[in-house]
This record gives sequence, structure tokens and C-alpha cells, in this order.
Amino acid sequence: MENYNALIVRLAEIGHLNNATAVLGWDQQCYMPHGGAGERAESFAVLGKISHEMFIGNETRRLLEGAEKEVSSQSPESDEALTLRAVRRDFDKSVKLPTALVAEIGKATALAHETWVKARAESDWKQFAPTLSHLLDLSRQVANYYGYEDQMYDALLDQYEPGMKTAEVAQVFNELRPGLVKLVQDIAAAPPIDDTPLRRDFDPAGQKAFGETIIRKMGFDFERGRQDVAVHPFCTSFGRNDVRITTRFDKNWLPCALMGTIHETGHALYEQGFDPKDDDTPLSDATSLGFHESQSRLWENIVGRSRGFWNIYYTDLQKQFPGVLDDVSLDSFYKAINKVEPSFIRVEADEVTYPLHIMLRFEMEKAMLAETISVEDVPEAWNEKMREYLGIVPSNDAEGCLQDVHWSGASFGYFPTYALGTILSAQLFEKAQKHNLAIAGDLEKGEFGSLLSWLRENVHQPGRRYLPAELVQRVCGEAPQSRSYLHYLNSKFRDVYGI
Amino acid sequence: MENYNALIVRLAEIGHLNNATAVLGWDQQCYMPHGGAGERAESFAVLGKISHEMFIGNETRRLLEGAEKEVSSQSPESDEALTLRAVRRDFDKSVKLPTALVAEIGKATALAHETWVKARAESDWKQFAPTLSHLLDLSRQVANYYGYEDQMYDALLDQYEPGMKTAEVAQVFNELRPGLVKLVQDIAAAPPIDDTPLRRDFDPAGQKAFGETIIRKMGFDFERGRQDVAVHPFCTSFGRNDVRITTRFDKNWLPCALMGTIHETGHALYEQGFDPKDDDTPLSDATSLGFHESQSRLWENIVGRSRGFWNIYYTDLQKQFPGVLDDVSLDSFYKAINKVEPSFIRVEADEVTYPLHIMLRFEMEKAMLAETISVEDVPEAWNEKMREYLGIVPSNDAEGCLQDVHWSGASFGYFPTYALGTILSAQLFEKAQKHNLAIAGDLEKGEFGSLLSWLRENVHQPGRRYLPAELVQRVCGEAPQSRSYLHYLNSKFRDVYGI
Repeated sequence: MENYNALIVRLAEIGHLNNATAVLGWDQQCYMPHGGAGERAESFAVLGKISHEMFIGNETRRLLEGAEKEVSSQSPESDEALTLRAVRRDFDKSVKLPTALVAEIGKATALAHETWVKARAESDWKQFAPTLSHLLDLSRQVANYYGYEDQMYDALLDQYEPGMKTAEVAQVFNELRPGLVKLVQDIAAAPPIDDTPLRRDFDPAGQKAFGETIIRKMGFDFERGRQDVAVHPFCTSFGRNDVRITTRFDKNWLPCALMGTIHETGHALYEQGFDPKDDDTPLSDATSLGFHESQSRLWENIVGRSRGFWNIYYTDLQKQFPGVLDDVSLDSFYKAINKVEPSFIRVEADEVTYPLHIMLRFEMEKAMLAETISVEDVPEAWNEKMREYLGIVPSNDAEGCLQDVHWSGASFGYFPTYALGTILSAQLFEKAQKHNLAIAGDLEKGEFGSLLSWLRENVHQPGRRYLPAELVQRVCGEAPQSRSYLHYLNSKFRDVYGI
Repeated sequence: MENYNALIVRLAEIGHLNNATAVLGWDQQCYMPHGGAGERAESFAVLGKISHEMFIGNETRRLLEGAEKEVSSQSPESDEALTLRAVRRDFDKSVKLPTALVAEIGKATALAHETWVKARAESDWKQFAPTLSHLLDLSRQVANYYGYEDQMYDALLDQYEPGMKTAEVAQVFNELRPGLVKLVQDIAAAPPIDDTPLRRDFDPAGQKAFGETIIRKMGFDFERGRQDVAVHPFCTSFGRNDVRITTRFDKNWLPCALMGTIHETGHALYEQGFDPKDDDTPLSDATSLGFHESQSRLWENIVGRSRGFWNIYYTDLQKQFPGVLDDVSLDSFYKAINKVEPSFIRVEADEVTYPLHIMLRFEMEKAMLAETISVEDVPEAWNEKMREYLGIVPSNDAEGCLQDVHWSGASFGYFPTYALGTILSAQLFEKAQKHNLAIAGDLEKGEFGSLLSWLRENVHQPGRRYLPAELVQRVCGEAPQSRSYLHYLNSKFRDVYGI
């Protein structure tokens, strides 16, 4: 196992370089003084280059090939074989892209970001369209270098959700959409919920204290992680023992920090939960962005917006903000935090309408990539889909097709993972409750240990051993499906809205 | 200039790796959760290894040799020639040490640190002595690999104060010591100063606010730097545009944070003050640890503990802590903050006795290295020197020869730079006042701009162009000397103590 062991050491070194890059990224968003931006950008480029060169170098290839021979007689289910499968996948993808193309995309997206910021500020799609065309061209090249069997979009999707095919995503989405649109329509016909109690005056220090109490209770380990303030909430990790989340506080919108903190904690519990014996190996990683999102959504929505959760914790919340919520009943608060309303901005959408925003983007991306729609026609097509899915039409591009940063980063294929994770969260939760009958009762008592243990064992500790579809199959005994999610939404929201 | 330019690019890449390591170090001391320590130690090792291998690699050698040919016809005073001289110096030193020895020292000092912590806690020199003997052996090997003409200590000193010889340090120290001992004795015979007003109740938030106001006034650029809380105060830099200081707050000892902040700001002003045209080149660096310390000491002591400074800022300080200092006159406060008293612990020593602590360590290190004293006899020799220099004898090794971390890190040759910097601060300040007659008056008005400009031009912007002795010569027109420092101390403290 000489080559195998040397390969693991080399990959661990690359991992340390990437962790250093992640620390630099965390620092940039949380603490870096303004003046450091230029130098920091160069540091990212240098560390990225060194890491990439180490990974695609001949030494890695030699060790990987040698290791594959050493491990060839072992079971394909052995840790060594699963490790090499994951490394081979990464390696083959990395070497397929010409360095010049990677560099061109790096430059193009840096410029595109500036263009997008200006276009969005001026709500003017025309400014952004030529840039987007160029990025689509580059992405088509990427897809062609990666290769694909069925659709070009497969090759891009695979970067974020390994092994998943466009047709599979479409199937899951198509199963879900009619039921979702129906539920949205039924809710729209019901009396609206008043969420103004969530817009009262909530002292940020109190918000922070309450959030910390909740995520400690959920199992976030502050000995192996921390929470900071940043403009954009995110979770980052420098190994299983140093996982950090960020939060932003809005004095007059309670869910911003509170539900955001629980969401990021869902991500963090995944990262803190990898198997210690996988430390410093390629297995100590998430299997996909979709699985990552399934963890954040599960904790944020299925747990954190449940009636059982607030039955236990609403009194504590009221105590945290003396006088602020005295006149708001538990039932009113529960409904407020679950208000459903078609809206324009994806990141502000509730859990019913959210997947529709994603489906729209999925349709647009496929069409743009296949050139069945021209970039110039995106605003019109966007608005038409908004009417179809959500029954509303944005009045300008800033709150329409210019709202997201992703396209300026050429991240085509990324959006589906948000909805896949959301859908998967319900499928996993349903299975968890069947596997361990104590979970439902524990959650009613505000205890999260049994749920976390189940997730640890079934989702976190496997790490990157299995492709996402394999892991769903192993855990749930079935392929990814949206019935569980639709069932969850209908049960919950028909009750919330009394329909 | 093909090789020269490629060399600069390569060194800039190594610089970015080293900056990343520095960010990791800052994070470790300021924010890292406890659980991240193990992984972080490995990250340091990996980044250090990659950086070292890039620097000593054949590619660097080839570019350096090629660049030296390209630049050979230029004036030795040209930036290119000065750059290559500095790089050649670093390169030759780096390649001289066998990798195995560097690794052995890394391991030995990691273990030695643990041993030292325990020995100090138990005040038991015998526990530490065998470890120290081993580290001395390793350091003798280092010195032999580096090579030296006169004394073995020269080779170690050169790591921290490039080009400086042990005999030169001894000369400066010998010039200073008699006058210093005499001043300490005279002060000891005078009525003692009451510094209890500094031990009152100072709200840390107020200390932070006051410190920030002062260092802003001094010229610390918060757009290109920041201040955080850490157990050990330090200054670190990730390039000229991101320079960070840390502070610790002691509620009941005002000078801890305040003078510590001003001290670290002195370091930071140096780092923020390198010439923008030297960005990402080897010239954008300090010339030596001694010069670095000259900047921190100048601002902390010569400026921050001056009567002129407090004439202006004492009222602000009183206002910052309402009621706390109302009964303390400006004169009493000024004297309190300049109290001189022989004490055992170096890091708590006043500016008169401080260099004596260093001289003692300098003597001990030379003797241990030359084996004119055995490691076992260090406590006795230490205590004897304490009696001779300061007139006091520690009652145990924890407050004697076990107090400093440096020997456990095999950092022999480092201590002198503290005193050299302290001495140099007075030499530079004397010259600054002669060069620009406005400085003295500006300082009396609490204005620091003219002093900072002089330092920028004469000390900061030259960066690493000149060896420390050359820079002293260029700026002051003479070799390093201690007359200025002794004159400064005698003028100030004979006034403070009325002797």
C-alpha cells in the first residue's frame, strides 16, 4: 500500500492548502480590512494555482495509478476502493479542463461580476446579456471537455451533484410542480397570515444569545466551531474540528438571523459530523451540494419552523425580548414564521414557493445552454414562467432575471442543488422517523439528540463514500423522490392555513 | 531582465504562501476554536514545507543566478541589485541547512515547549536542563552549517539582525551598562513613585476606545489594518495593506493595554509604511528585528510616555473614565506611568531596567553556547547577574531563568534585538529632531505627523534595501551607539525622580 499511503499524504497536503484558502475566505468576509482586498485576491489565485498544480501533477497521477493497482484486489465497498473512486473522479475531471480555459473563465467571471453588479443596480438586462453569452460559450466548452452522454447540462450539473443526470432532476421537479402550484394557489385563496410581529424591534444582542442557545441545543459544538457576523451568511470548514458559520442581524426582521443561523448550523452539523477515522482523507467531505442543502433545510424548516419546536421554545423567545411579543400568541407566531406568499426574490422565498424559483432557473439554464432561447429573450421568458409558476410578474429585471449572482460566476448547474436538497430533506426526515420511532417524540420535547444521531450515522459519517444517488438508495431504499416533500408541505401548510 | 522578473513573480508567490501562513497564525491566536489546534499545526507544517521547497528549489537557484547576470552591470545601489543582494542572502542561508536538521529542530522545539511549560509551572530548572542541552547542540550545528568568522554566536544573531556581529552588540551593551546600573541605583535611592492610580478600575471598553483614538492620531490606518483581542499582544502583516495588531486588556492595570497598543502600533506603522512601489517584492519588508523594535519602543516610550504627550492627552483619558482619575494630577500620572523599579520579569520591566534584563540573557546565551557555563549552573549564574545588574535576586526559577519562552524555541540570538531596538529608538529620535526642527514642537502639541513622515522616509520606505548597520549609518551618519539612549534616559528619569 506504499502508493496508496503516499497518495493520501499528498492529498492531505493539498487539503491543508485548500483549508488555508478557506481560512482566507472566512477572514475576508468577516474581518479583513478594506485595503487588504487586492492582496487577498492575489493570495487566492496563488494558493489555488499551487493546489491545482499539485493535484493534477504527474506525481499524483503516478501515485493514483499505483494505488489503484494495490487496491484492485479489495472489495469495491472497502474504504480504500471508495476513496480511490472519489479521487479518480476528481482527478479525471480536473485534468480534462485545459489550464488556459480555467484561467479564461477566472478572468471572465471576475469581469462579469462587475458587469452584473452594475446591470442589476440599473435593472438593465441588455448590459449583462453579451457577458452572459460569453460565459455560456465558455461553459459549453467546459461541458464538451468534460463530456456527456445525454444532455450538455449533465456535464455542468455533475460538478455540483456528482452522477446526477438532468433527466433525473427534471423527473423529480415534474413530479413536484403540479402539486406545488396547486398548494400555492389554494394558499393564495385563503385568508392571509399576519407576519408583522416578526418585524418588531429585536435587539441584535438578544437575537445572538437566543440563536446560540438554540444551536447549542441542536448539537453545534463550539469547541470545534464558532459563529461570526458577515454580510452574507455562510458555513465554512477547515476540517471537522473547525467549522464556522456566519450570521447577519436585521433588527426588524427576526427570521433573518434566527432561521439563517439554524440553516447554517444544519450545514455545520454535517461538517462537524464526519467520521473521525476519515480525518485528512478524501472521504471526510460532503457527497454533494444537494446533500449539504438537505441538512440545512431539514434543521431550518422541518425542525425550526415546526409547531413542536415553538411549543417548547416560544416562551424562551418571549423572555429573550421582554415586552416585544407579549401580545402574540404561540399560534400566531407559528403561523407568522410559516407565512407563504409568492414573491420575486428567491432568497426571501418561503419553503412552499422556493422550489418553484429553482425550477424556473433550471428551465432557463437548460434552454440558454441549448440555445433554444436566446439570451436577449431571457427577461420575457423569465416573467412568463413567474406568472405560470407563482402567479406574479416582476416589474423590472433587478427583481427578476438579474437578481442572482450565480450566472455571473458561470455556475450553470448549481441552482438545482438548492431544490434537490430541499426535497431530499423531507425524504430523509420521513425515513429517520420510521427508523427511530423516538425521534418524533423527542422533537416534541425540544430534544434533538436522536435526530442528530440518526443523521450522523446515516448521512454525516458516510462522508464522500457514496455518490448522492447511492447514498439516498442506501439510506432510504429508493431513488430521490418528491412525494415525501409534497406530503410534508401539504400536511403542514393546509393545517397552517386551515384549508 | 527575463530571469529577474520571473524571480520576482516566484518570490511573490512564496510571499503569498507565507502571508496565508500568517493569516492562519493570526486566526489561531484571535479566533480559532480550541478543537482546531491539531489540524492547524499540520497546516502550518504543510504550508511551511511547500514554501521552503519552492524557495530552495532549483528553479529559484536558476532564476537567481540568471538575474544576477542580468543585473551585474547595474549600480550596486539600484533597486534590482539591492533586491538580489537580499534574496541571495536568504537563499544562501536557507540552502545551507540540511532539511533533516530543520525537521529535527521543529520536532525538538515542539517537545521542548511542553517541557518548558511544565518546568516553569513547577519552577524546576532540572526538568528543562537536558532539553536545553539538546537544543544548544542543535543550534551549534546550525551555527556550523551557517558558518562564522569570529564567534559561533555571530551565526545565530545573524538570523535576526543581519550582518551584526556579537562583538558589536557587546560593545554597544558595554557602553550602556555602567550608566544604566548607576541610574538604576540613583533611582533606587530616591523616594519611590506611587503607581497605584494605574491599578484602579478601568472599563476595558473605555480602554479600547481611548487606545483607538490615540493610535488613529498616531497614523495607524484602519482601512489597512485592524485591532483584535489576543492573549499575547503582537503585530502581524499580510502585506502593507493589511496589518493587524492585538491587545490584551487588564481591567486593573491601565498600561497593559494602552502602552501595549501603542507599542504594537509602532510595529504596525513600520509595516504599513513600506514603499508602495515595493509591493510584492523582497524589499517590502523590515530590515531586522532590531529596527522593528526601534519603532515600537520609540512610539511606546519616547512618545507615549513623554510629558508632552500627557500634557495633551491626560484630560481626554480622565474624561474617558469619569471619576476614576479625578484626584490624580497630571504630574502624578506622568510619574506613575514612568515608575522605575528593578523587577524579576523582563516583559514587565520599565524602560530603564529593561536593557539590563537583555544583557543578562545575552551573556548567558554566549556562555552556554561556548560551554563556558554548563546548563546545570544557569540558575546560579542567572541569579548572580540579577544581583549585579539589578540588585535583586529571584526566589525561584520560574521568576528567574525559566521565565522566557525563547530558549524552548531554540531562538538563541533573538534577545539582543530587543535591546538593540530600544537603544536605536533613541538614536533615531535624536536624529529625527535634528533633521526636522518642527518635530519637537509638534509632539508638544500632540501632533505626530511630522515624526511619522520622517520615519516613513528614513526608516519605513527603505524597507529591506540596506542591512541594519548600513541603514543606521545612512540615517544617522554613524554606527549604532548607546550614548543617545543613555542621554535620553538620564534626562528623563533624573527629572522624573528629581535626582
